[in-house]
Amino acid sequence: MANTFGHLFRITTWGESHGGGVGVVIDGCPPKLALTEADIQPDLDRRRPGQSRIVTPRKESDTVQILSGTFEGRTLGTPIGLWVKNEDARPEAYSEMATKFRPSHADYTYFAKYGLRNWQGGGRASARETVGRVAAGAVAKKILHERFGVEVLAYVKQVQRVVASVDPEKVQASQVESNIVRCPDAAAAGRMIRLIERMRNAGDSVGGIVEGVARRVPPGWGEPVFDRLEADLAKAMLSLPASKGFDIGSGFGGALLKGTEHNDAFRMKGGKVRTLTNRSGGIQGGISNGETIYFRVAFKPVATVMHEQDTVSEELKNTTLKGRGRHDPCVLPRAVPMVEAMTALVLVDHALRHRAQCGG
Amino acid sequence: MANTFGHLFRITTWGESHGGGVGVVIDGCPPKLALTEADIQPDLDRRRPGQSRIVTPRKESDTVQILSGTFEGRTLGTPIGLWVKNEDARPEAYSEMATKFRPSHADYTYFAKYGLRNWQGGGRASARETVGRVAAGAVAKKILHERFGVEVLAYVKQVQRVVASVDPEKVQASQVESNIVRCPDAAAAGRMIRLIERMRNAGDSVGGIVEGVARRVPPGWGEPVFDRLEADLAKAMLSLPASKGFDIGSGFGGALLKGTEHNDAFRMKGGKVRTLTNRSGGIQGGISNGETIYFRVAFKPVATVMHEQDTVSEELKNTTLKGRGRHDPCVLPRAVPMVEAMTALVLVDHALRHRAQCGG
Amino acid sequence: MANTFGHLFRITTWGESHGGGVGVVIDGCPPKLALTEADIQPDLDRRRPGQSRIVTPRKESDTVQILSGTFEGRTLGTPIGLWVKNEDARPEAYSEMATKFRPSHADYTYFAKYGLRNWQGGGRASARETVGRVAAGAVAKKILHERFGVEVLAYVKQVQRVVASVDPEKVQASQVESNIVRCPDAAAAGRMIRLIERMRNAGDSVGGIVEGVARRVPPGWGEPVFDRLEADLAKAMLSLPASKGFDIGSGFGGALLKGTEHNDAFRMKGGKVRTLTNRSGGIQGGISNGETIYFRVAFKPVATVMHEQDTVSEELKNTTLKGRGRHDPCVLPRAVPMVEAMTALVLVDHALRHRAQCGG
Amino acid sequence: MANTFGHLFRITTWGESHGGGVGVVIDGCPPKLALTEADIQPDLDRRRPGQSRIVTPRKESDTVQILSGTFEGRTLGTPIGLWVKNEDARPEAYSEMATKFRPSHADYTYFAKYGLRNWQGGGRASARETVGRVAAGAVAKKILHERFGVEVLAYVKQVQRVVASVDPEKVQASQVESNIVRCPDAAAAGRMIRLIERMRNAGDSVGGIVEGVARRVPPGWGEPVFDRLEADLAKAMLSLPASKGFDIGSGFGGALLKGTEHNDAFRMKGGKVRTLTNRSGGIQGGISNGETIYFRVAFKPVATVMHEQDTVSEELKNTTLKGRGRHDPCVLPRAVPMVEAMTALVLVDHALRHRAQCGG
Repeated sequence: MANTFGHLFRITTWGESHGGGVGVVIDGCPPKLALTEADIQPDLDRRRPGQSRIVTPRKESDTVQILSGTFEGRTLGTPIGLWVKNEDARPEAYSEMATKFRPSHADYTYFAKYGLRNWQGGGRASARETVGRVAAGAVAKKILHERFGVEVLAYVKQVQRVVASVDPEKVQASQVESNIVRCPDAAAAGRMIRLIERMRNAGDSVGGIVEGVARRVPPGWGEPVFDRLEADLAKAMLSLPASKGFDIGSGFGGALLKGTEHNDAFRMKGGKVRTLTNRSGGIQGGISNGETIYFRVAFKPVATVMHEQDTVSEELKNTTLKGRGRHDPCVLPRAVPMVEAMTALVLVDHALRHRAQCGG
Repeated sequence: MANTFGHLFRITTWGESHGGGVGVVIDGCPPKLALTEADIQPDLDRRRPGQSRIVTPRKESDTVQILSGTFEGRTLGTPIGLWVKNEDARPEAYSEMATKFRPSHADYTYFAKYGLRNWQGGGRASARETVGRVAAGAVAKKILHERFGVEVLAYVKQVQRVVASVDPEKVQASQVESNIVRCPDAAAAGRMIRLIERMRNAGDSVGGIVEGVARRVPPGWGEPVFDRLEADLAKAMLSLPASKGFDIGSGFGGALLKGTEHNDAFRMKGGKVRTLTNRSGGIQGGISNGETIYFRVAFKPVATVMHEQDTVSEELKNTTLKGRGRHDPCVLPRAVPMVEAMTALVLVDHALRHRAQCGG
Repeated sequence: MANTFGHLFRITTWGESHGGGVGVVIDGCPPKLALTEADIQPDLDRRRPGQSRIVTPRKESDTVQILSGTFEGRTLGTPIGLWVKNEDARPEAYSEMATKFRPSHADYTYFAKYGLRNWQGGGRASARETVGRVAAGAVAKKILHERFGVEVLAYVKQVQRVVASVDPEKVQASQVESNIVRCPDAAAAGRMIRLIERMRNAGDSVGGIVEGVARRVPPGWGEPVFDRLEADLAKAMLSLPASKGFDIGSGFGGALLKGTEHNDAFRMKGGKVRTLTNRSGGIQGGISNGETIYFRVAFKPVATVMHEQDTVSEELKNTTLKGRGRHDPCVLPRAVPMVEAMTALVLVDHALRHRAQCGG
Repeated sequence: MANTFGHLFRITTWGESHGGGVGVVIDGCPPKLALTEADIQPDLDRRRPGQSRIVTPRKESDTVQILSGTFEGRTLGTPIGLWVKNEDARPEAYSEMATKFRPSHADYTYFAKYGLRNWQGGGRASARETVGRVAAGAVAKKILHERFGVEVLAYVKQVQRVVASVDPEKVQASQVESNIVRCPDAAAAGRMIRLIERMRNAGDSVGGIVEGVARRVPPGWGEPVFDRLEADLAKAMLSLPASKGFDIGSGFGGALLKGTEHNDAFRMKGGKVRTLTNRSGGIQGGISNGETIYFRVAFKPVATVMHEQDTVSEELKNTTLKGRGRHDPCVLPRAVPMVEAMTALVLVDHALRHRAQCGG
């Protein structure tokens, strides 16, 4: 089940960075949703390599094709098959990797697990696998928006030590898209871009934090115990390449507060039960409470750097390896649509689960 | 599936804080494992309320009973039913909660989701639910130890701003158990205990960080893409009551490093592929690389405090509520066996998954 | 996952014929359903050994206890834990089985699979395991009745060559319960009872067919492709002890008809799309069409007979074994509530799945 | 999960009879299996329309393409994406079906469930969906053969009242393929072919029985309780289009025997525990016992006939409909590879499950 995500709204991704392409099967999509490629392509364009000077220059148009599951522009309720062809396959660029394990990549662990590996560009461990997630996430976002009135977005909150100031309650998608680093704080965005450019020029890379937000989630989504909403979000985020951490609401900072400081008092407001503060991050006991859900995802710096590094060969001999060719100085701008996609996938799954058990 | 965890080694927990008891069914346990209640009880004792002056004083012996799945002291391969009776049920202590939602508890969200709730002591949202997890985790730890040579442990790394110094490679279980706060750094432990006592006396509570460790995990456990080992760990940890964050290896701190600083170089050592550093936290591309797995879990301060707080009633009126009775100033000492249990459950599940697909 | 059934309305059973008891955890039950032990006990009484002179005389009161999941007589939406103690444990009656495999029982295959077995009365392979299913099935039947207006029942259609005449559209539960063999055709019932008594007196056993019926299932339940309604019913029925076959609607007999004879013509009736005949058995393309669902389950004769039979010992030597003690001449009367239970479990699961994806 | 089958060796199929094609994602395939399109195409050719004069004449080359999951001719352990383009799409042939429900097809139930349908050739309910299963089944058969020494095959046992005489222990694949009806009894095959030709000429259709066989399955595969081997086989078979029944070993006929007649005595033979008879059909208590597994699947006559039939329109008015164009007089010859595929999928899944829990 390693390649399937979700319980009722299920996606199964397939494909390697080199080969016939990458794709996804979406199972459990509600019927009669208006859906064409035009609903999906914009998020793929946001995920696409080569979209700006601060991301990896691999040249892929990443054009999505709906192979099944729709009829006359509407979903049938049957599996939606989506396919994106690989175009910029350059196996020759990876020839040295055929025999050496790239440090902090998955080359060694795949080899240890399976006894063989597709060394061309990372194979299944390539970030290219996220094409399927982002495509499915676009469908999930559409369902959330049209059927439940829920809005999902994400943005770059921090690049190394450059921290943006953003209000999760108010930030708009247009602000996120207003610059190439996808940070809605224009001043911070400028510093972030210059930092990433320095890294690119130095053949190095840099990490940071993406913040995810879901607004207008109604009270009641999420399950007690194991499938708490924050647990499923945590899994979703830690399944993204290069992610190293997740926290929600007050998060790691909340560990520094006292109970009397941390609790979110309830008050009636507009006929609804609301909280005066939102340290809970919109979730209590694993279930949404109607407040804005917000969380952070830490990403390490991309492992491929243009410097010689110590490593080991498949023949188990010490050696060195220097990154070549396409260099991605910062994964964060492209991680933004990935975080949105995974958030939407978790939420639509829980929306359907809630409806199944509790109706409404 | 909210109450089931795992794919091949599956546990299903049941029970509320008040009622016939709490329990767990373990499905998929390998046969012929020596197993009696004596293998399980010690971890339940570590999770038990009333074990020391710095945790909740609820009086429960938490005596486990094996109802099925063993024969003549060995596992049969069929489901293991475990049951712990509730003893210290005092519904009268909760009468005010029958009509008011406790701030930052699950009272409101359960009511919003299900339209009713067991207001006696938190019902299913009570930390009492973790009895089943800890019991099942003891079985998982035994399998890991006896069948795979893997060691799992956890300890309190931080209480509010008091941070312990611990080496994940060397810390021993006996050091963890040498004091009531379960912090293997004796000096820090003393400060932590005094801090928690101050909180208890002030009717307040405090949070912190538990660090989890798994040693001697062989290379190859974990799955690409969605069921990455760190993703399943993240979900496991965020499913624990009061947890707010998870990070692994370099974690959130790794976001501050450059790629050239962060990468773990490979070197041959003792005939094995090893890394010189371990910022990856023992997992690369979702799969274990043979190094020690270590991660942190942030816990918020316990929500029940002995102070009057603003809240709302079931009749949707503003009101106030003051915590009464049993007061838990810090969940961390009892969270340690919970973190160990969830870690072991994730690992044994992945051990079996790896064996299923790849043999060996 | 061998001991869990269902996708949204999930049951997990545990327990062996000898040991602390048998039980079930029901996960995913809708909240606010009125539920007490009195809703469950009647079906357990129908499944109970010793209920009449034509079934096994094991003495069990099979008293069910709700351990969790309800509050003030209503379901909470959280897991319902049900437990039935074992009473009539007589391991000494099974001492010869400790070393010999009973023919056509699961003794040998469990031993081959797990390397050990609980030889006391069949262990997990005992029909006693169905206690949990029947208890959960009673809850499922209540949901179907109260929330969806669906009625489920079953009856003995055939014992060896004695075939009853029953109209699935009209048969009532009271008719089924009007005699000890649970056959609503009184004349056939008399012949069946006499046949079973002859078998009992001869120390032999006899099989037959149970027919299951679900009425007023609305159109639209069931899933295309793998989880067709009839596929899930087939799995449910073949998971019952001693079952050897399943067919639905025209079934095996339908293989003898031509297409022009077999097709069910559609006609409007009372404003609804109806079929003039019902060879489809209420399901087309895996999805209910609004007609009555009916199907048959074949049961072999019980394997325990009071005659000496050739067999093999655990030491892999040829030997003989003669059944002793409690003798069940016919499983069919007790299989009736089992078939009802499994039918209800399949249907309520699909009802929730349909609501999740398609609403309404 | 309607479109996913299996627990550890999982397939997800997608695609409709008209649209971009049909395909399957295989997840959980063991690594290092030699695999190219040439391993899969032969079974697709056996499933293909137009392969002989007694099956539907739709013209499809059904050429399979491996899009992912292999590298240099061996499986990677990552998802195998398989795709078959649709070629002979003739939506115009179905124009009348755009507004009328074909009797005993899934037209009405899909419409009732989803509120819309792809009326072109049956959409997802088309037998074309089985392309993905048969392709995946070819991979499963290869694993069973190469890794476990297990042989799977199926054949036509009966067409209407023409019954073949076949020994499940000895029948060879070459005999099955020696005639176009796939019946290894040459004399019966001749009569079957003539019967089907008469049906074709009369614009009518005919059903029958396919028998499935698995030889050399080791003792120990299968799970107690819900995922019994015969339960999973029953589900697999009843998920095939047009199937109406399943029985195993003695099956429905076993219901006519007495216990003393039905039991399979154990005897040692060649150092192994064997049974003298095989009424159990190779499975006892849900677990394989080392004997040959054999079972039967009943198929109704194909619903499309070239005669005018009563039906109802989407506007809920009585009307009539006459089948036109491509006419399939008998699904049985093409059902043979489908039965083999589903059998192999069940067995390889259980082989991996057994290895996971019990090792070896």
